[in-house]
Amino acid sequence: MSEGKIRLYVDQPLGAGQAVRLSSDQAHYLVGVMRLAAGAVILLFNGRDGEWRATLAEAGKRGAIAVCEVETNPQTLPPDLWLVFAPIKKARTDFIVEKAVELGVRRILPVQTRHTNSERIRQDRLQAHAVEAAEQCRATFVPEVADLVPLDRLLRQWPEDRCLYWCDEAAIGQPAEITGPAGPAAILIGPEGGFSADEAAKLRGMPNLAPLSLGPRILRADTAALAAITLWQARHGDWR
Amino acid sequence: MSEGKIRLYVDQPLGAGQAVRLSSDQAHYLVGVMRLAAGAVILLFNGRDGEWRATLAEAGKRGAIAVCEVETNPQTLPPDLWLVFAPIKKARTDFIVEKAVELGVRRILPVQTRHTNSERIRQDRLQAHAVEAAEQCRATFVPEVADLVPLDRLLRQWPEDRCLYWCDEAAIGQPAEITGPAGPAAILIGPEGGFSADEAAKLRGMPNLAPLSLGPRILRADTAALAAITLWQARHGDWR
Repeated sequence: MSEGKIRLYVDQPLGAGQAVRLSSDQAHYLVGVMRLAAGAVILLFNGRDGEWRATLAEAGKRGAIAVCEVETNPQTLPPDLWLVFAPIKKARTDFIVEKAVELGVRRILPVQTRHTNSERIRQDRLQAHAVEAAEQCRATFVPEVADLVPLDRLLRQWPEDRCLYWCDEAAIGQPAEITGPAGPAAILIGPEGGFSADEAAKLRGMPNLAPLSLGPRILRADTAALAAITLWQARHGDWR
Repeated sequence: MSEGKIRLYVDQPLGAGQAVRLSSDQAHYLVGVMRLAAGAVILLFNGRDGEWRATLAEAGKRGAIAVCEVETNPQTLPPDLWLVFAPIKKARTDFIVEKAVELGVRRILPVQTRHTNSERIRQDRLQAHAVEAAEQCRATFVPEVADLVPLDRLLRQWPEDRCLYWCDEAAIGQPAEITGPAGPAAILIGPEGGFSADEAAKLRGMPNLAPLSLGPRILRADTAALAAITLWQARHGDWR
């Protein structure tokens, strides 16, 4: 039933009869680009209230209002998996965010490491990518993309109950197996240059660390992120 | 030992003492871009004879010759997995090829389906992408990228002993499990518009078909390709 309909994320409450003012970008897209008029049906979600079928009540190029009719999908959360990664080149970072949302993670945490190229990220741009990916893949939840945080600080505050999967190149040749328990988890993907000796030592000292091998070839950071999320999802996540 | 060295694919025999003339593009890259001179050490592979350490004997911007010294990695084949996919937008098709090589497949077969957008592909460009990915990920093998073939014809000639994993959207919600036996296999990724009813019926009639679910969200074709290869590799491939 939701096939083929335009699906938009909004940051407003959704519920039966609720009127939702769309952003000017969204109005432009619906009316100017997709040629929808009042009466057209779209789908809305806000990350909290499920997915709703809504009808355009007003449809101008600069402003549009949609009224929610019926819930088409209940709100669901992806499993409690974080993706922690050192940002790489722009296109590949965008890609990691898009794919993490599709595959299903709860939070995305870019980290600054000794060898990370970028000193800063455009958090707002990455968050917008996450929204777009959620619109595409019919998720009802949008993972938060956090601001860049130094790896040191993240590890110091690491929650005791969260298993940390480290895709360590030293594990190459080991079986690709998710060895940690079910429950909160995170996947850590290092920078292309690898972690510094310091950082690697700190990681090895973490009480809830689980090394994860990803086959005999050297994967790029973006490939490693996707493969690791896939394996975890199939073992402990909502792909089971 | 091979860390940090430039690694190039050549289409010539490799062996102790063998002199290899590099292409003019490669010579330009080594000498013009990377500023290497005679005596510099690089790594060579050709997809058949393993990886060799070689020394530049002549190094001009238009021509360079390297002499093989010692084998640094034996020739290895990825497991007998094919990736069959309907080409999508250029950047995402490039991406699928790059990732398939990193994750490890034996052959890459673009197929023409009822809903495939592109009538043709640039096979030479995709093959060059595969070479570049192999150079990056330290594989000694480069999968062949076949020319675009109609799905019908491929299915008519389908080898009896090759399990065909179909990432069918109808399987959404099933566990993400590789259910087929070890041995020759292929992963089939449909076009963004899905298969036609005709094609789907033909697929369901294949004797060695194994449906594969990839979680509750709708994955883009490129994401599905990567996730499916990952699951197969961890179950039956060289990631075990």
